[in-house]
Amino acid sequence: MVILSEWLAAQLDKDSAEPAYRQLLQLMQQAILTGRLAPGTKLPSSRTLAGDLGVARNTVLHVYDQLSAEGYVISTTGSGTYVADTRPDSAAVGTPTSAPANPPSPAAAPAGEDDDAAGASARGDMSMRGQRLIDEAGVSARQWGAFMPGVPDVAEFPARTWSRLQARLWKSANHGLLTYAPGGGYRPLRRALSDYLRVARSVRCTPDQIIITTGIHQSIDLAVRLLADHGDTAWVEEPCYWGARSVLQSSGLKLAPIPVDDEGLNPREQDLRDPPRIALVTPSHQYPLGMVMSLARRRTLLEYARQHKVWIIEDDYDSEFRYGSRPLASLQGLDDSDRVIYVGSLGKLLFPGLRIGYMVVPERLAATFRTGVAELYREGQLMQQAVLAEFIMDGYLTSHVRRMRTLYGERRQLLIDAVTRHFGDALPVMGDEAGLHFVLGLPEHADDPAIAAAAYDAGVIVRPLAAYYSVRQDRKGLLTGYACVPHEEIAPAFATLARVIEEHAFDRPEATPEKQRRAG
Amino acid sequence: MVILSEWLAAQLDKDSAEPAYRQLLQLMQQAILTGRLAPGTKLPSSRTLAGDLGVARNTVLHVYDQLSAEGYVISTTGSGTYVADTRPDSAAVGTPTSAPANPPSPAAAPAGEDDDAAGASARGDMSMRGQRLIDEAGVSARQWGAFMPGVPDVAEFPARTWSRLQARLWKSANHGLLTYAPGGGYRPLRRALSDYLRVARSVRCTPDQIIITTGIHQSIDLAVRLLADHGDTAWVEEPCYWGARSVLQSSGLKLAPIPVDDEGLNPREQDLRDPPRIALVTPSHQYPLGMVMSLARRRTLLEYARQHKVWIIEDDYDSEFRYGSRPLASLQGLDDSDRVIYVGSLGKLLFPGLRIGYMVVPERLAATFRTGVAELYREGQLMQQAVLAEFIMDGYLTSHVRRMRTLYGERRQLLIDAVTRHFGDALPVMGDEAGLHFVLGLPEHADDPAIAAAAYDAGVIVRPLAAYYSVRQDRKGLLTGYACVPHEEIAPAFATLARVIEEHAFDRPEATPEKQRRAG
Repeated sequence: MVILSEWLAAQLDKDSAEPAYRQLLQLMQQAILTGRLAPGTKLPSSRTLAGDLGVARNTVLHVYDQLSAEGYVISTTGSGTYVADTRPDSAAVGTPTSAPANPPSPAAAPAGEDDDAAGASARGDMSMRGQRLIDEAGVSARQWGAFMPGVPDVAEFPARTWSRLQARLWKSANHGLLTYAPGGGYRPLRRALSDYLRVARSVRCTPDQIIITTGIHQSIDLAVRLLADHGDTAWVEEPCYWGARSVLQSSGLKLAPIPVDDEGLNPREQDLRDPPRIALVTPSHQYPLGMVMSLARRRTLLEYARQHKVWIIEDDYDSEFRYGSRPLASLQGLDDSDRVIYVGSLGKLLFPGLRIGYMVVPERLAATFRTGVAELYREGQLMQQAVLAEFIMDGYLTSHVRRMRTLYGERRQLLIDAVTRHFGDALPVMGDEAGLHFVLGLPEHADDPAIAAAAYDAGVIVRPLAAYYSVRQDRKGLLTGYACVPHEEIAPAFATLARVIEEHAFDRPEATPEKQRRAG
Repeated sequence: MVILSEWLAAQLDKDSAEPAYRQLLQLMQQAILTGRLAPGTKLPSSRTLAGDLGVARNTVLHVYDQLSAEGYVISTTGSGTYVADTRPDSAAVGTPTSAPANPPSPAAAPAGEDDDAAGASARGDMSMRGQRLIDEAGVSARQWGAFMPGVPDVAEFPARTWSRLQARLWKSANHGLLTYAPGGGYRPLRRALSDYLRVARSVRCTPDQIIITTGIHQSIDLAVRLLADHGDTAWVEEPCYWGARSVLQSSGLKLAPIPVDDEGLNPREQDLRDPPRIALVTPSHQYPLGMVMSLARRRTLLEYARQHKVWIIEDDYDSEFRYGSRPLASLQGLDDSDRVIYVGSLGKLLFPGLRIGYMVVPERLAATFRTGVAELYREGQLMQQAVLAEFIMDGYLTSHVRRMRTLYGERRQLLIDAVTRHFGDALPVMGDEAGLHFVLGLPEHADDPAIAAAAYDAGVIVRPLAAYYSVRQDRKGLLTGYACVPHEEIAPAFATLARVIEEHAFDRPEATPEKQRRAG
């Protein structure tokens, strides 16, 4: 017992900010776990130990109580406090094989095994799907700045209006808005969204068919878990959004990349022979290339889905931002066979961190999806949904989108002007007059990931088209976002990007447009 | 052409609130899709049609523009506007078999098929895992009221404090808080949580090891997708939380339910022979029964996990609310082999709709999990995370938890008093002195789902223990939550519940305690 007191006294740091209670508790736990205090050892009385250590007796009493509550010691009335025997029983630990003759005890494990475990990289710890997810991850560490694609200008978001609506709702003390959201989301928001989608996107729906989610990722995840099994096939466009690919793969779906051309999704003979369970498409504005799916292709796809019971997930990405023509109608609005799950998000319209999206499901699936979203994700955020509902109903969404459409249209033109100034028509701008980015085409031999990496180091964010292809990259280019870049920063940031492109894509000096111009 | 104008004139409703532009657009789309306007038909000039219909020529021009943009018609300069041929080509639609001889055209499909499709319930549409998820869903349509288990009293939440912090942050115009959150969450929140968990839960971690999620569901989902593959086994406690079961199953894991006894998880010989990839446990407070995992069992489990490379997911549910002893230390704090993924949530402490949770992962997995959470869920909500960080750092979390601990402790006692008053000791109260609910034990022959359903109809929410078992229900009872019920409502609500229990569980009149007392 003297030894325990001496050891504890040596370890206790009375000048530490850590209270004596916590220090003593941790020291004694450590002593028991390491075997310094062997099972069955009787602890000194609280009075004795307190005296030896020069701490209050109450401190020791609290430590003993806690050790007892956590099972480190056993207190018996009258006869004192003993260290409990909590050593793992090697029989109970068991063996993975069915041969019980020589169960490997912890001590018998080869020394190298522990070293391996401690020194192993994360790679060895992960599942196959986890490793694939990380290896193929497309997410960027930076989320803001020229020319981050797919990001709206959050500095233009009417934050004061939002904050005012929010403060009013918090003041109203509606406690129902603080609980879980089991019914598919806040009802008035679903009503407001169904009105908006009917008018703006020709979507045919009632508020009942709307399920509020946290965004496109969750909407796709929910649809896939409810409608597809492990091993089922999903058509994705080639190229397509990396995030959708990751969600589908990690839910066990096999991806079948389907080519796109100027009219959108263009399945080949061999694709059609093997109907998928799910087809994920971006008909309004192909992501990332920007073409619009033609009406003929839409009708063909819907008919194919009807015949072969394919679920179409329509990602109506960026559909509000069109600078030339009006927004096109949704695929869902053409569907008479209830094969389309329509998904959208408010993140590109308002701000990405909002995390409110929605899906429109066929009427007969609505109850199923409401249950599914609550069961899988235990949704909440009704307060934020209520703020958004007011924001929409008071007309702020429409006027903000209108204002941003003008702003982004101007920025798009400024960026195109900068491209033309630097490269003439050597680098084509791909993509319809829509969305928050375009694809800056690069020569066939260009290494777009290397260029994107070099641009990143130079302070400009672009994404290589390579990241969006699953199988065969038949176009080279950079996703270049203009929406979040203030007008005056566009030209200087593009000058930096142009320098990087010239250094990498035009390695033969005579082929550099800038040098040609200088020479000419 | 006369026919088209006449048909359109008959359909147009000039008194409708719907603008003539939208009406005309929809009518012409419909006419083209149904074949009333055949492919190749030349449309009348805008001037002619406007005259025939008595609408402005600009209206017709806009309709033609939109029809052209959406691919319904083709406009050729000089020679007019023609209906495009967008009919699905039956060759392009293809067949599911490899026999191209007789491709079934849409018209050739048996009539019954369409009827089936239209009349089918959702059941036929779903995947196996989706059907299972919905069939076994535990989520309740009501989320508030006596005696909803697992729900804190949101009316006691310091909403004004929260709203004030929130308004201040929105005013600060920190645009970075409105973008995606790719780095595992808001850094100051991760620092505040790591401090909190170290002190309150003996968790060993740095801020780097903390990943912010939307709650327990997402934390489990992420761990399972990164660390386990389809077909891997997961140990779950028997009984356990239905939500965790649903998440694991829909990610493709096979569940192995492991019995629990008074010391927590108690694997049998046959369980140990087949080590799982994942073991999901609630050591602080078994959910839903409430026992604490003993130190001996903790050490055995950790040793087993080390030997067999099992990932332990520690759900530290309700650990802050203990009314008798102090909170027990976490399993994670005992783990020397980096096998524990610790998950927790703020929803039970503050309000469920908040949707902020966290996980603590081993250091060598931290970067992987940060990438994984961003890639799979595209997280945001940094503004809300910043509000929470301030709330914690200003000491509001600690004082709120302290206040709620007293309040819930009182409510728990009031409810136990009511149980004793009605039933004496005929119905045991199960569960440690902790958490937001206890289990009211029922006689062996009781049908707890039927009793819960009858109670629901009588206006009282309880959950049957049956919903928490996967294989064999060896205890009957009702999860009864007291945290969200004001003191004065506890006795009357329990009187209602007691009546339902008496009617159902004590069907032989002489066995009803209430009647016995009345008779006595």
